[in-house]
Amino acid sequence: MPYIDLPHAPGLLSLLQKFPATAGPLAELAQALLRGPSSLTPAEREVIAAYVSDLNECFFCAETHAATAAEMLGPDRAVMDQVREYGDKAPVSGRIQALLTIASKVRESGRAVTAEDVDRARAEGADDRAIHDTVLVTAAFCMFNRYVDGLATWAPTDADSYRMFGADLAAHGYRRR
Amino acid sequence: MPYIDLPHAPGLLSLLQKFPATAGPLAELAQALLRGPSSLTPAEREVIAAYVSDLNECFFCAETHAATAAEMLGPDRAVMDQVREYGDKAPVSGRIQALLTIASKVRESGRAVTAEDVDRARAEGADDRAIHDTVLVTAAFCMFNRYVDGLATWAPTDADSYRMFGADLAAHGYRRR
Repeated sequence: MPYIDLPHAPGLLSLLQKFPATAGPLAELAQALLRGPSSLTPAEREVIAAYVSDLNECFFCAETHAATAAEMLGPDRAVMDQVREYGDKAPVSGRIQALLTIASKVRESGRAVTAEDVDRARAEGADDRAIHDTVLVTAAFCMFNRYVDGLATWAPTDADSYRMFGADLAAHGYRRR
Repeated sequence: MPYIDLPHAPGLLSLLQKFPATAGPLAELAQALLRGPSSLTPAEREVIAAYVSDLNECFFCAETHAATAAEMLGPDRAVMDQVREYGDKAPVSGRIQALLTIASKVRESGRAVTAEDVDRARAEGADDRAIHDTVLVTAAFCMFNRYVDGLATWAPTDADSYRMFGADLAAHGYRRR
């Protein structure tokens, strides 16, 4: 039961519907950050979003973005499950492992990231843009996760709902429509 | 020394200059959230922003928003110092104390907020909008603080710089200009 009066819509959507003045910039931020130009693919950014949301124990965000990443990864969708299970030890590229390490630090505190973490990501092939986008995707999900859970929004519990959200976000992105 | 190549500008400003696609929605979010319609005054929202940034140990954001709040509070500017020193035990109204408690919980995790925290804020006179805005201001600063510190941006250390930033933000807000 949400802590404030909200329309019956899942997770973040109930907040976006009720508070349109902040919904606009939040949707534009998600679109620019997760779909705009980057040296990370949209699927890689969704994997980071799901990983951070799992660490923050935000069920709605973690399930939604894991489903979106899986949809985008297609035949490689097992990657998402492996990251959810093994984090930065998952059998992915050294570049993605190093970026997941940075994400796990930023989730804890911006001050936890070290020059060594960044050097390692760079040695594995991450450029400035990938490092920046990893930090900002993580920081933004530290916001979205707190917004969704701090007001105790409702979240569906069935896998079909999240498959539907994931298919929609993979196809259409975050602009409000 | 920042972890990526950035223009020599303080804190968040260096990131907004370098990454315009995300800067637009971030500035619009700050403007809507900290200056738009709310049952909290802009000064009250700046106090919450500074309090959260202090808890996250983000020097640039804490000094900037404490200076902005002090500028807006004018003769009552001691309130900002008291909140920085005593947090939700500061000698402010019961309503602001209860909202600061919610902010300190959201900062930790969205899941840390309890129905009792919200009931107490309501009993002290906070409405749905004040509770919502407290949660989203806190969540947004959990993002901004991580963005600023996760990339090790440069921050001035002299008080005059922050008085100047505070006077500017109090007068002109967050829209990019």
